[in-house]
Amino acid sequence: MADLPNTPLLDTVDTPHDLRKLKPADLRQLADELRAETISAVGSTGGHLGSGLGVVELTVAIHYVFDTPDDRLIWDVGHQCYPHKILTGRRDRIRTLRQGGGLSGFTKRSESEYDPFGAAHSSTSISAALGFAVANKLADRPGKGIAVIGDGAMSAGMAYEAMNNAEAAGNRLVVILNDNDMSIAPPVGGLSAYLARTVSSSNYLGLRSLAKRAIRRISKRVHNAAEKAEEFARGMVTGGTLFEELGFYYVGPIDGHNLDHLIPVLENARDSEHGPILVHVVTKKGKGYGPAEAAADKYHGVQKFDVITGAQAKAPPGPPSYQNVFADQLIKEADADPRIIAITAAMPSGTGLDRFGKAHPDRTFDVGIAEQHAVTFAAGLAAQGMRPFCAIYSTFLQRAYDQVVHDVAIQNLPVRFAIDRAGLVGADGATHAGSFDVTYLATLPNFIVMAAADEAELVHMTHTAALHDDGPIAVRYPRGNGVGIALPAVPERLEIGKGRVVREGKTVAILSLGTRLAEAIKAADALEAKGLSTTVADLRFAKPLDEDLIRRLLTSHEVAVTVEEGAIGGLGAHVLTMASDQGLIDAGLKLRTMRLPDTFQDQDKPELQYAEAGLNAEHIVDTVLKALRYNEAVVTDGARA
Amino acid sequence: MADLPNTPLLDTVDTPHDLRKLKPADLRQLADELRAETISAVGSTGGHLGSGLGVVELTVAIHYVFDTPDDRLIWDVGHQCYPHKILTGRRDRIRTLRQGGGLSGFTKRSESEYDPFGAAHSSTSISAALGFAVANKLADRPGKGIAVIGDGAMSAGMAYEAMNNAEAAGNRLVVILNDNDMSIAPPVGGLSAYLARTVSSSNYLGLRSLAKRAIRRISKRVHNAAEKAEEFARGMVTGGTLFEELGFYYVGPIDGHNLDHLIPVLENARDSEHGPILVHVVTKKGKGYGPAEAAADKYHGVQKFDVITGAQAKAPPGPPSYQNVFADQLIKEADADPRIIAITAAMPSGTGLDRFGKAHPDRTFDVGIAEQHAVTFAAGLAAQGMRPFCAIYSTFLQRAYDQVVHDVAIQNLPVRFAIDRAGLVGADGATHAGSFDVTYLATLPNFIVMAAADEAELVHMTHTAALHDDGPIAVRYPRGNGVGIALPAVPERLEIGKGRVVREGKTVAILSLGTRLAEAIKAADALEAKGLSTTVADLRFAKPLDEDLIRRLLTSHEVAVTVEEGAIGGLGAHVLTMASDQGLIDAGLKLRTMRLPDTFQDQDKPELQYAEAGLNAEHIVDTVLKALRYNEAVVTDGARA
Repeated sequence: MADLPNTPLLDTVDTPHDLRKLKPADLRQLADELRAETISAVGSTGGHLGSGLGVVELTVAIHYVFDTPDDRLIWDVGHQCYPHKILTGRRDRIRTLRQGGGLSGFTKRSESEYDPFGAAHSSTSISAALGFAVANKLADRPGKGIAVIGDGAMSAGMAYEAMNNAEAAGNRLVVILNDNDMSIAPPVGGLSAYLARTVSSSNYLGLRSLAKRAIRRISKRVHNAAEKAEEFARGMVTGGTLFEELGFYYVGPIDGHNLDHLIPVLENARDSEHGPILVHVVTKKGKGYGPAEAAADKYHGVQKFDVITGAQAKAPPGPPSYQNVFADQLIKEADADPRIIAITAAMPSGTGLDRFGKAHPDRTFDVGIAEQHAVTFAAGLAAQGMRPFCAIYSTFLQRAYDQVVHDVAIQNLPVRFAIDRAGLVGADGATHAGSFDVTYLATLPNFIVMAAADEAELVHMTHTAALHDDGPIAVRYPRGNGVGIALPAVPERLEIGKGRVVREGKTVAILSLGTRLAEAIKAADALEAKGLSTTVADLRFAKPLDEDLIRRLLTSHEVAVTVEEGAIGGLGAHVLTMASDQGLIDAGLKLRTMRLPDTFQDQDKPELQYAEAGLNAEHIVDTVLKALRYNEAVVTDGARA
Repeated sequence: MADLPNTPLLDTVDTPHDLRKLKPADLRQLADELRAETISAVGSTGGHLGSGLGVVELTVAIHYVFDTPDDRLIWDVGHQCYPHKILTGRRDRIRTLRQGGGLSGFTKRSESEYDPFGAAHSSTSISAALGFAVANKLADRPGKGIAVIGDGAMSAGMAYEAMNNAEAAGNRLVVILNDNDMSIAPPVGGLSAYLARTVSSSNYLGLRSLAKRAIRRISKRVHNAAEKAEEFARGMVTGGTLFEELGFYYVGPIDGHNLDHLIPVLENARDSEHGPILVHVVTKKGKGYGPAEAAADKYHGVQKFDVITGAQAKAPPGPPSYQNVFADQLIKEADADPRIIAITAAMPSGTGLDRFGKAHPDRTFDVGIAEQHAVTFAAGLAAQGMRPFCAIYSTFLQRAYDQVVHDVAIQNLPVRFAIDRAGLVGADGATHAGSFDVTYLATLPNFIVMAAADEAELVHMTHTAALHDDGPIAVRYPRGNGVGIALPAVPERLEIGKGRVVREGKTVAILSLGTRLAEAIKAADALEAKGLSTTVADLRFAKPLDEDLIRRLLTSHEVAVTVEEGAIGGLGAHVLTMASDQGLIDAGLKLRTMRLPDTFQDQDKPELQYAEAGLNAEHIVDTVLKALRYNEAVVTDGARA
């Protein structure tokens, strides 16, 4: 690790109020120090780097020009907010980013008044900024809403919905389009092509003279503000027709790393009597840090790294990730079957589909941040006889819930869902946890919901899904590495709705769904050590339930516990409902359901998050023992029935 | 009722194959007969009329020009598909539209090969058509995807997501924008203003000469097809810049009621080697039927009516609708509190917010078909101290599930959700049923979920929600009229998480949530008649549960039954989970959960749908009796504990 950077000017800035006391000529140095501090901090914590480096100057300029926190600044997605956090009273904790108990890697209302709206999922900022702007307008209070949104985030439908409604805010809404020509992966789609054409237009090349004109205007700002703002907003249009058509005053494109351009333009946007205004800013992701600029992903998300060399700490060698296991199996399925198609919503590398894309480029569709379209597009493919897989993170599939219900489930179309990042996800925290998918999918008629207990199971389940043409089928699996089990040479087609008994016992039954299986087995060992013969079952299916197996386990053991990596309403609720439907609870049943708690959990290491959730082996043991002691039950080693 | 119309030409057309045998000169008469038949059919059934009348000529032209069903035609939303159904082998059943056992009011895959994709929620058609087009392209099969989408549906984000990805289909995708300047209500937003400008441009007025040119082109179509298609597609551009920017070849606007214009233009779109193509067609909702054209809503959705006069059958007089009760109470809240704001997503009249809008126009926001934006906009308003109500149908709130989770629940912002059309909805069928909201909301930390048992309860709950500033709160209520109970002069602020006992008994406990309460009381009467003393509780809250009340009821009665108007994972699951968590089931508990079945139910009268679902009084009685007989339990009239 390098020493801490030398930051004499930044050391004088605790909040934007301090920043605004600086002379404009000092801002360049401040930005340089802010960039160095950002690199140093992320070098020690890991996290999102490239996006933050791209907006260092923009961060300085916005806080310099606007009256934050009364002007409400919303960073879309929030990946890029580390420099913002450093400038808004959180520098002392910046080296706790994404650590347990530390600062969130995203904006968060509870952290600072400078974070008026939390973000982490993309494309929410314009809607939220519009809410702030309209609230202030109605209350006749000062204060604008400012959304900073990347070109990738603009591809999501909700950004378009918000732009389509922006007029209500008038000049209280400023949208800053941060155009770095890539979000996480290179951007896709018509909008991206459109922006590229805009940026390459000749006017952009003449930006210097344009900025000079803007500066000249500022010098006489006191007079004729309204007239000038109109002239300014309209006069600078170089190609923002699309935004103009939606009712925005378009300004740009502006060099987002040149403070002499940014500040006057933002001042004009601030003072304009017309609006809403869209300021199109062009930045470089990873700007100012050689290793990031040179990397294909611009150091979007990094491990801890050496600041001098940029060398990232290597993840310790381990079993293959679930993502790669899934992708490799899907490649095999596609090798054998031309109907297999893979769809990702802007997460080719996160889902492993970049590997698939290399093997089957014609059958790989990255639709951008557009989960709704991804799902209904897949439904159309399935209706025409293809075998589409939508690989989407659990938390992002929430974006397409209606499409899952309306286009897939009701029509009983065989869309395959590879639900990545199921369960708790670690450093990304509550906004990225995959907590609800079993609940929101298993309540749907026609749906099959599987969860992989390990990477070998994921191979079987991917294969099973590929061959299942009778309706929708989902397999969920976590982020990160598998448990190290050998992968099957030949994948098995699982019988739908059938679980498996991993260990047969007599007194205690643990009914596991998903990767808590390892903890369930550990718990069984501990229970056996206490003389409690323990069965462990991997149910595999949250829907349809393996009713025969579950009934047998519930009625032949003293106590049964379900364990799942999801919130209330999922596996446990379905098992209880079955037990009630069948009258199994009438005569007494010691059945407990272990699930995620009724809280949103902050970031931490996943194992610590699961400890906090009470879903580790020790908690399973504890739950079993408590249930057995209930009503002074005598622990015996015989079956009850 | 008028006699059946005289339709000599239409009588010869059973499918589009027959249609294509007609001479172009005959199509005008066919369209007229098709219009008359549509009016006659809807006169006898009620249903959606205005949209269908607007696309009579378009329906004829599309089936005449394209090779349906191999070219996959997708009607967005599906409101407008009655003429299409008449032309595609379903005329004999057209007078069963929206009736139990009859034709669906929307397109439906199981009805016809001419319905390749079911619709009912808006804005799915482009994604689905893209799926069909890409599937055929990959399989090297003929067949285009054709989406017909209204200007209102274009305001939803998913339409934009799809357009942004349309390039993958090349010339296999044809999007027909049916621009009637209103979806259900007049359109809102920047896109609408944009389309209005396009249509009013001078080129539109010169449409006749344009069509003549197009026809001239057709006559020499055999030669130079590629060149001409390019010329055609580009040459006709009059103002579709927005669509061009997204990568479409834009054609239009075209008079959608003039077959001499429509047919050559669609033929060119069909034969173009370039694509995707967007054909902008201008139509009149309600076209050709005087009463519909004269009505403000263009007879969007009608009761049965007299074809000659247009007079609709009046709904029998009855109690006020839940919608009006909600809106009237919200008006009172807003009279007293300037922070109350009402938001609807294109359903001002359906939700009753048209009434609110008259009383408080500045605080009424109709965002168009944009539920995602609606919810996050509300979150922004709430974060800035306002008290926003999102009035959205249960089924449409699915569109904004991620925003509910990520922007509202995680941030614990006090957004109020008025969840309309909860439970089964009658003639609109499975696609519109509000079956899942309790499950998908009650699984979320921080959420409060209420269900109104009657219209007086809705008054209390609206008032309670208005005053609740501690986090998100939802109240769900059904479509249609209340039960006739007197409305409270002064609304009560309910204690959060407290139910009420409606009738106190000793043996049977019925735990009701929502408007099944009336059936629960009927069931209690029947049970009392059998000597079974019955308690009826209205739990009011699915979350948080009234644990004290529920524990008391479960432990002091012989049998308990939960009743709800929702699918598995909702109230019943939460009550069972509580009973399991607290060990109440260990010693035996006769608890049953009554809920919607694990199927998507087709349209019918709501009372018949609930009968099919097994959620009427007789089913409650039956469930209780079966539970009591279980294990040969002796029915006694004393408490168990």
